[in-house]
Amino acid sequence: MSQQLSLNLRLKDASSFGNFLAGPNREAMEQLRAAVVQAATQANAKPAMICLWGAEGAGKTHLLQAACRLAQELGIAPVYIPLADVVALEPSLLEGLEETPLVCLDDVERVAGRAEWEAALFSLVERRRSTGGMLAVGASAPPDRLGLKLPDLASRLAWGTIYAMQPLSDAQKLEAVQLRARHRGFEMPEDVASYILSRYPRDLVSLFDLLDRIDQASLTQQRRVTIPFLRELEAMRYDDAGIENKS
Amino acid sequence: MSQQLSLNLRLKDASSFGNFLAGPNREAMEQLRAAVVQAATQANAKPAMICLWGAEGAGKTHLLQAACRLAQELGIAPVYIPLADVVALEPSLLEGLEETPLVCLDDVERVAGRAEWEAALFSLVERRRSTGGMLAVGASAPPDRLGLKLPDLASRLAWGTIYAMQPLSDAQKLEAVQLRARHRGFEMPEDVASYILSRYPRDLVSLFDLLDRIDQASLTQQRRVTIPFLRELEAMRYDDAGIENKS
Repeated sequence: MSQQLSLNLRLKDASSFGNFLAGPNREAMEQLRAAVVQAATQANAKPAMICLWGAEGAGKTHLLQAACRLAQELGIAPVYIPLADVVALEPSLLEGLEETPLVCLDDVERVAGRAEWEAALFSLVERRRSTGGMLAVGASAPPDRLGLKLPDLASRLAWGTIYAMQPLSDAQKLEAVQLRARHRGFEMPEDVASYILSRYPRDLVSLFDLLDRIDQASLTQQRRVTIPFLRELEAMRYDDAGIENKS
Repeated sequence: MSQQLSLNLRLKDASSFGNFLAGPNREAMEQLRAAVVQAATQANAKPAMICLWGAEGAGKTHLLQAACRLAQELGIAPVYIPLADVVALEPSLLEGLEETPLVCLDDVERVAGRAEWEAALFSLVERRRSTGGMLAVGASAPPDRLGLKLPDLASRLAWGTIYAMQPLSDAQKLEAVQLRARHRGFEMPEDVASYILSRYPRDLVSLFDLLDRIDQASLTQQRRVTIPFLRELEAMRYDDAGIENKS
């Protein structure tokens, strides 16, 4: 099992159900959460499969990592595999996962057209269906539009429930940034959140990365998060441009 | 409800079921966790009460905060009230909590002998029993040895399940420190953990505070956690003695 355990890459500390701004994706969130609870608490839970698809930034990765985090809290060992990061490795990575009660595969579109990976994924889904446990996948499109070559793989990926994840509106993104800040232990006033949304790329991946940097700077400098503080940070980033590679 | 919400003091980010080294307290942990899942997922869950008692550092606060965190992840709003911090305020703080599906009261021994607080606590337990929801309390001794003056309050606090929390052995404390470090995203080698246990107070509250400081210093200085690094930190602490009040 040690090979699988090493795959359990460090989960982004911040991604949980508690700090997910559900917006239009509430049903996907609630069904995924309910499935994890069932897998973790019912001895003979039926096999479960959930497929989340949608554009970058719609929340697929957040939900898959939240599922893993909740599973850990409930005492079962999850495995989260970002296929984008491991597709250059051997597909045998997917072997032996039957014993893991929750397997989350992200970026499933990355296996399309790679015969060995497609076969390994097909085999994993089949084993999951026969031995039980839960499989959750994230993909950029619904299974039948991923360009998968292996006959029946798309239909196998679709045997459970499929949710089309919707992007958030700008107002919801603003709420999402504030919610995330609150869960990190600081309040982000609405004027600061609006300022950020008006000046930075509006995809949530970038916004949360920015939030990390702001939080870190606010902690180390013991400063409250205000617009003047953000302006100073921006100025520092230009000054620091040559230093960034140091660490 | 705003008064109650403001009571929901910031939970220590690090306390969860996932990073609780159960040791001799596994049953308490599992029953508390199962009760939270039931309260969060069953529409007409029966009222539940759990009392955890034990010495400082045995893990009561950790488990109560883990229960709140799990409840948040499961989509229900918990309230955590450390009575030690609020006992100087009005006992009316405990009013209106019936609507909150999970109420955790820590340091219950602090209300002993305070007539108004004892009455407010009695009333909360009674309302909980009649309207449902979950109440979890932490105390330094079992209910009948808390020195409560109000007749029947001790028996009311005992109507659910009572767990005597046991302290961890030194070997388990070492494991607990390593587990906590791993959940924060860094590995603490066994020699470093042993070094800490041999040189610092061995209660887990102090040890986890120390872990916070080490983690922070390791991040800001971009250093791995080794014994020489800890020695430098110790030296710095003496140098910094006059600066500590600055922030």
